[in-house]
Amino acid sequence: MTTLLGGIEAGGTKFVCAVGTGPDDIRAQVRIPTTTPEETIGQALAFFQAQMREQGPLAALGIASFGPVELHPESPMFGFITSTPKPGWRNADVAGPFRRALKIPVGFDTDVNGAALGEHHWGAAQGLDTFIYMTIGTGIGGGGLLNGRLMHGLIHPEMGHIRLPRDPQKDPFPGGCPFHGDCFEGLASGPALEKRLGQRAESLPVDHPVWALEAHYIALALTSYICTLSPQRFILGGGVMAQQHLFPLVRAEVRNLLNGYIQSPAILEHIDTYIVPPGLQDRSGVLGALALARASFASSSAP
Amino acid sequence: MTTLLGGIEAGGTKFVCAVGTGPDDIRAQVRIPTTTPEETIGQALAFFQAQMREQGPLAALGIASFGPVELHPESPMFGFITSTPKPGWRNADVAGPFRRALKIPVGFDTDVNGAALGEHHWGAAQGLDTFIYMTIGTGIGGGGLLNGRLMHGLIHPEMGHIRLPRDPQKDPFPGGCPFHGDCFEGLASGPALEKRLGQRAESLPVDHPVWALEAHYIALALTSYICTLSPQRFILGGGVMAQQHLFPLVRAEVRNLLNGYIQSPAILEHIDTYIVPPGLQDRSGVLGALALARASFASSSAP
Repeated sequence: MTTLLGGIEAGGTKFVCAVGTGPDDIRAQVRIPTTTPEETIGQALAFFQAQMREQGPLAALGIASFGPVELHPESPMFGFITSTPKPGWRNADVAGPFRRALKIPVGFDTDVNGAALGEHHWGAAQGLDTFIYMTIGTGIGGGGLLNGRLMHGLIHPEMGHIRLPRDPQKDPFPGGCPFHGDCFEGLASGPALEKRLGQRAESLPVDHPVWALEAHYIALALTSYICTLSPQRFILGGGVMAQQHLFPLVRAEVRNLLNGYIQSPAILEHIDTYIVPPGLQDRSGVLGALALARASFASSSAP
Repeated sequence: MTTLLGGIEAGGTKFVCAVGTGPDDIRAQVRIPTTTPEETIGQALAFFQAQMREQGPLAALGIASFGPVELHPESPMFGFITSTPKPGWRNADVAGPFRRALKIPVGFDTDVNGAALGEHHWGAAQGLDTFIYMTIGTGIGGGGLLNGRLMHGLIHPEMGHIRLPRDPQKDPFPGGCPFHGDCFEGLASGPALEKRLGQRAESLPVDHPVWALEAHYIALALTSYICTLSPQRFILGGGVMAQQHLFPLVRAEVRNLLNGYIQSPAILEHIDTYIVPPGLQDRSGVLGALALARASFASSSAP
């Protein structure tokens, strides 16, 4: 018997909703624009209700959401998006309407933790207990597993907002983050690249100097994460990392910056399998939502 | 019945060895200079053997060691110090001689993970599952618990070696780390302070501008760790942090740098209990070693 699951990759521009059992068995999928919580959540709910009439009951739903989000189950705001600047979504209850209407377990986490869990179940992080999944695109964020469980802590990581060294002589762009100026996201997100260049980056040739600069910032961030929590692997997704030629540049620069200090064969000898693209390609998000559903079902049916 | 434990805070200048059951019951303690592995380990072993004759059997021994160390139990080098520059200690087996001679379970981890575990059992981190213990002194290092278990991952964290932004106009000192120049340790360790100033820092008045600079670098590092793994608390120990006047400076600068982005009451309202000195004062290390012993005994006697 297969366990039918629902998943929502809840992004700031669209909600991708899917029903299925895993990567090879997605039975239905729909994209809903992110407008107001009432409208978007209403449409998503209608999709799952129609699917349940058609395909039978869902064991659980998983929601991998843009954030920041409240992840403490004991909080009255659990399952809410909290302090987002996105109009209408501040303090929006995302998980609650689904839980109340569908009456099934609802797993809820950040978009990047969801993607990380998807990669752990079916992708490039199988068998690892401490790794990082990052998206480098419109924004920069990271999630992952620490000692076998999703990264939570005080709230949840906001990996894109670490401060990096910037040499104003080599890169006069002051950064585009409204909170921190030249933090990692402020320097290296897709919009930061575009603002620095005055044009979109993806049409530039692979030997344009901006790619070496971009790889340098990504490598600075990765070395910081390596020193901070010693992950067993990095999985780098998102629109910017769709530029596959960045991978060898990032790998070489990580080794250059660490300068032999971290004596691990994973870094010194096998960096090609240490810093990798998502095993699930651009489906980490929606499959991650299904993985959250699966985990929620497993914990709700545990003795 | 009390469980008698042995602990070694194995540092680069001295091994502090203790026998007892916890902070209020240390029955014997000795300091042994760190010379060669044979001599230092031999003296430590003689101390514990004498104690066992006098006080009765030890349930387990814990070793909180300087590093880098090998922490993977399946590695043939488990319990070794690995790539240290300290003469004679490269690839030195530290845990093995004790395990073979004393025939009791030996817990082995980094000095900072040991101290973190001590703070978790008896100090300022009781009840937390994700927090960081840092020492800022001769070197800078960090350990802690992630999701309830000690930080390991690929090898173990090397938190002192993250890169930080440095404005050469405000701080022309290029940093003292032989691997990375102006990484956190290179900028903010005790020796870095002394090298920058041309004198030891502790005799300087509390309003000397170097303290604001030091607090700025520490706060930059802490905000990076907050964004990376969202700890529930920071415990800051070590010789530099013995300058208690640094705490309010660091707390204010962390808030300043985060700029309201991390919406947690722990940071926005209660930062005095978010960034704190060790609850065990300068005994985190040796009590941490006892905590490692306790954990090793508990896991060896688990069903």
